[in-house]
Amino acid sequence: MMNTQVRWDSMDIDQLCVNALRVLTIDAIERAKSGHPGMPLGAADMAYVLWTRFLKHNPRDPRWPNRDRFILSAGHGSMLLYALLHLTGYDLPLEELKRFRQWGSRTPGHPEYDPDLGVEMTTGPLGQGFATGVGMAIAERWLRHYFNRPGFPLVDHYVYAIVSDGDLMEGISHEAASFAGHQRLGRLIYLYDDNHISIDGPTSLAFTEDVAARFEAYGWHVQKVDGHDREAVAQAIARAREVQDKPSLIMARTHIGYGSPHKQDTAEVHGAPLGPEEARLTKERLGWPPDKEFFVPERVYEHMRQAITRGEAWEKEWQQMWEKYRATYPELAAQFEQFLKRELPPDWDADMPVFEPGQQLATRKASGKVLNAIAPRVLNLVSGSADLTPSNQTYLHGYGDLSPEQPTARNIHYGVREHAMAAAINGMVLHGGLIPYGGTFLVFSDYLRPSLRLAALMKIPSIFVFTHDSLWLGEDGPTHQPVEHIPSLRAMPNLTVIRPSDATEVVEAWRYILTHQDEGPMALLLTRQGVPVLDRSVLASAAGLHRGAYVLAEAEGGAPRLLLLATGSEVHLALGARDVLQQRGIPTRVVAMPSWEIFERQPQSYREEVLPPEVTARLAVEAAMPLGWERYVGTQGDVIGVEQFGASAPYKVLMEHFGFTVENIVARAEALLSRTE
Amino acid sequence: MMNTQVRWDSMDIDQLCVNALRVLTIDAIERAKSGHPGMPLGAADMAYVLWTRFLKHNPRDPRWPNRDRFILSAGHGSMLLYALLHLTGYDLPLEELKRFRQWGSRTPGHPEYDPDLGVEMTTGPLGQGFATGVGMAIAERWLRHYFNRPGFPLVDHYVYAIVSDGDLMEGISHEAASFAGHQRLGRLIYLYDDNHISIDGPTSLAFTEDVAARFEAYGWHVQKVDGHDREAVAQAIARAREVQDKPSLIMARTHIGYGSPHKQDTAEVHGAPLGPEEARLTKERLGWPPDKEFFVPERVYEHMRQAITRGEAWEKEWQQMWEKYRATYPELAAQFEQFLKRELPPDWDADMPVFEPGQQLATRKASGKVLNAIAPRVLNLVSGSADLTPSNQTYLHGYGDLSPEQPTARNIHYGVREHAMAAAINGMVLHGGLIPYGGTFLVFSDYLRPSLRLAALMKIPSIFVFTHDSLWLGEDGPTHQPVEHIPSLRAMPNLTVIRPSDATEVVEAWRYILTHQDEGPMALLLTRQGVPVLDRSVLASAAGLHRGAYVLAEAEGGAPRLLLLATGSEVHLALGARDVLQQRGIPTRVVAMPSWEIFERQPQSYREEVLPPEVTARLAVEAAMPLGWERYVGTQGDVIGVEQFGASAPYKVLMEHFGFTVENIVARAEALLSRTE
Repeated sequence: MMNTQVRWDSMDIDQLCVNALRVLTIDAIERAKSGHPGMPLGAADMAYVLWTRFLKHNPRDPRWPNRDRFILSAGHGSMLLYALLHLTGYDLPLEELKRFRQWGSRTPGHPEYDPDLGVEMTTGPLGQGFATGVGMAIAERWLRHYFNRPGFPLVDHYVYAIVSDGDLMEGISHEAASFAGHQRLGRLIYLYDDNHISIDGPTSLAFTEDVAARFEAYGWHVQKVDGHDREAVAQAIARAREVQDKPSLIMARTHIGYGSPHKQDTAEVHGAPLGPEEARLTKERLGWPPDKEFFVPERVYEHMRQAITRGEAWEKEWQQMWEKYRATYPELAAQFEQFLKRELPPDWDADMPVFEPGQQLATRKASGKVLNAIAPRVLNLVSGSADLTPSNQTYLHGYGDLSPEQPTARNIHYGVREHAMAAAINGMVLHGGLIPYGGTFLVFSDYLRPSLRLAALMKIPSIFVFTHDSLWLGEDGPTHQPVEHIPSLRAMPNLTVIRPSDATEVVEAWRYILTHQDEGPMALLLTRQGVPVLDRSVLASAAGLHRGAYVLAEAEGGAPRLLLLATGSEVHLALGARDVLQQRGIPTRVVAMPSWEIFERQPQSYREEVLPPEVTARLAVEAAMPLGWERYVGTQGDVIGVEQFGASAPYKVLMEHFGFTVENIVARAEALLSRTE
Repeated sequence: MMNTQVRWDSMDIDQLCVNALRVLTIDAIERAKSGHPGMPLGAADMAYVLWTRFLKHNPRDPRWPNRDRFILSAGHGSMLLYALLHLTGYDLPLEELKRFRQWGSRTPGHPEYDPDLGVEMTTGPLGQGFATGVGMAIAERWLRHYFNRPGFPLVDHYVYAIVSDGDLMEGISHEAASFAGHQRLGRLIYLYDDNHISIDGPTSLAFTEDVAARFEAYGWHVQKVDGHDREAVAQAIARAREVQDKPSLIMARTHIGYGSPHKQDTAEVHGAPLGPEEARLTKERLGWPPDKEFFVPERVYEHMRQAITRGEAWEKEWQQMWEKYRATYPELAAQFEQFLKRELPPDWDADMPVFEPGQQLATRKASGKVLNAIAPRVLNLVSGSADLTPSNQTYLHGYGDLSPEQPTARNIHYGVREHAMAAAINGMVLHGGLIPYGGTFLVFSDYLRPSLRLAALMKIPSIFVFTHDSLWLGEDGPTHQPVEHIPSLRAMPNLTVIRPSDATEVVEAWRYILTHQDEGPMALLLTRQGVPVLDRSVLASAAGLHRGAYVLAEAEGGAPRLLLLATGSEVHLALGARDVLQQRGIPTRVVAMPSWEIFERQPQSYREEVLPPEVTARLAVEAAMPLGWERYVGTQGDVIGVEQFGASAPYKVLMEHFGFTVENIVARAEALLSRTE
């Protein structure tokens, strides 16, 4: 426990600032009557050292591209971040700290991505910050090697994080750490707030692995320090910065709830306010006037807001370099700007493939062709897959495999690490400069769901290619066959799910994805099996995908009596059924619905044009749990879906057994018509 | 590459059997024109050693409780397992191997849980087998210490698995390995098929961690052997069995596609048939007649089916011991049988708490009371939480914390390892003898979803307690607030989701869960915040939960003009709205719908009784994405749901902002009525 002799007005400036961080935390949490004081009290020393002695940032321009990134992976310690942002001069007045965890404040319970405030990402779900930082470090290295020229360190920064035992227990930390070690990401420096306490009690209840040995096994540089010895922390960070060929973990032994006379080193201080009396006692122990609230000595501001002067000087220096760079390398400079703005070059889609009708082509294969057609023009498009590259058809041919030796290669082999892949993609997107996408089987979207959710929450344009998107992957069987995944992705706010009907729609899907990077993450669902390339000279243009759903084939011989709605590989079956129904004199409209979310963004008039309210005989066909289709087919309608897990068999056999045949669609449609008319 | 001089008819018996495993794999995959030959060819040696020299099992009684468990975590190598089962005399005729990956066969693409065949669990999604085995080993140790008496090793077996690089890359392997090391599970012995090849190519593309050092850091015993040196493998397994205080990893260097002249050691052999010509050449290389299909020399059967004699002898010996045990310890023996049959003791629910109306009680707290009321009677009920024990209210007071020193304690601290927790629960259930449940926040169900899916696929009674089940957890904000999780759980086949309205329904929920262990996994969704205990003297009995949905409050003053449907913490709001609407002369029925899935199992007559088709004015209230509610409210109806992510604020403020108030329900109901009537 710290020396309690010194009062704030005679405290040395470093201790004063550290304690100011602590006291702001205490007061904000007391006022909110909710929050996590333990981590900020314990990690204040190391955070202070990092922020005042190493972190290259400019509080006046939180979007400065060459800033160091700082992630509070232990997001429950949000007040530590808010106190740092406030004291170093970001746009976060004390008033906002007083509104911690209140409606509409900029100080929510866990940090929420706020690039104008210096909050680099949303954290809270453990392990995510840890793994996202890896993506940032990949992006930094990629851009550094791509853009820097002798004397022009345009991109040249570190990625720091404070991580907790919870982060290190989560499986994603293993995936990300193993991957980061493999990639030798020397600019990654993580401070582990090793406080020996988790919610259930001492970490010894559940967490006794040798963390240092584990990370060394991953190829990390590991140091152990006393997390309250600021000089030791500084030396460790300095050493970590020197190690350029390994990511660094600094294990800083700290005391959770540091300074709290009765709660330090207990689980109790993790996630609840100290309470008024203990708050008083703690402030006293910290040398603070116990009865003042939100008291910040002026000396603290003076000292910590030097971050502004320093930051402005750094940025100014960088700006001057940038101006010279622009003069010296105008083309590269233009590209740098374009990359950072997520702009596409003109004619980026000039080489889009054209698919001839008649052939059978898996939509994943069409996607591979599209990607390789645009890769030569969209130079920051970066591919990846969780060890399913050939299956996902994600590879960009001729652009190499990312490695320490090939840091600007454009294919990333993530290994069988879906979760780390998704977080890394988020990290690259958050860093800026790259357009990353990653592939796996749709069924394994479950493995990366927490990172996908974070992308959706941050509404950032992470792109996921989910192939093998239905039972029709066949023999691999139910473990590999998605059933519930389409509806469970549709259930996620801000996520756009696109399941193209054929190769031509795949072209439009990629066009949509890359030109709507303001609409949040996108999931592109693609078939394993071949599906016919539809004849667009007879059917509607695939450009209809840009409206989410469209009339693919109009009813003939009168107003539609029946609507057939379908997505993906079921669309051509619906077309086949329409042929039969039309022959039987039933005017049948087929609506392709590649994306519910895009469709819902259209004006009501368009939606009613596609799905006229007066036509209540509606049959949807989709090889997935039908949850949610009722909104389109109505109570009178019907859905041919899959309400059980799949089975291992050749896919055509499965299609028979599960009723995905033209004959069954026709039969169900006729039964529906006889009920509704 | 192996010696090719020796023909099958002069081959030594061990080599002959190993090659028979290989050739069956080749032929089955060739016939199916689909499958993964690489792993079986490479791992046949070690599998053969394990199965013939160590694995204690009885092919004639795959359910023998004291058998060793064997898991093929690398489930894509399914043909290896099928070949082993066939050759050692399980109920798997050669005909089934010829129907590999065909509709209705017992030899699906990936192994599917089949306890009568010796398939201990479904595998394929990587990492799952690895982590599930940990749960099996926990169960073995628990039961061993609980039941065994001097001279009566009633439970005394090992858990073996063959794992792949993919298993070890997945995050869940980290969680499970760290947890298993912490728990010192000495009966866990995993053979790592270290073949240096993944789908994308050499593992060096993405996987260069020091696996041995990593596992040693977790507290495992690690050995390295040549996986084709059967003697070395045998010695390693023997040593691993001697190490009783650490789980063991045997890293066996193998060659994927062993024996294939052109494809050994390539990624190509992982997931596609060899092709007819390469199959011929491989068989030749293996000393087999190249043109025969499914040829198994009689000597192979003779040798490998000794497993039956051995197994029957083991089981007989065990049965004799069991008879003596039963005579000596009749009460324990009865309990052993009861545990294994998943039966509950009579009066197991005699001490169920009764909750007085009027008070506010979080349903998680009610659940904690229920669990502690039944724990003294249901002695194999085993609790756990992923480091949220106090929040989830899952703790069984007075029953200790599971550890090597307290192997029969009934609370498991999984650490912040949701995924490993879920898999361990699956493993305990699969092993038999325990009734485990595990808790985390509903939002973090995403972290364990792949294991939850496996439980659903196997239709096993894994129980999950998901608390903090809506935005109303309040200040922790959107990272912790589930929105899409309720519909995304409902989308999963075989999973029953229960969201009780109040404390009294929680009692019934647990009653339902524990008495319906044949209905697959269950997810119990509970509130963080207090909700009123409903007055059942006025309202319908909470026993209605057993039908999924029920009329909680009937319309008064005539047939219902309006149905209010609600779940969980929104039910009391619906009741409040009903009061207002009734006062305004609108006969309003409130339907509590704690479980859609249970409701869907009821006869149509009951469902129409609860939701009369003629009442089309229906308003659902649930603090979640409304996806799917249309099936109950119809196109005329309305849903008060949450179609965006939440926010950080006190929950009552959130309820106002998101429209979860009596006033808003009334307003929406009246608007609905004015539209529909």
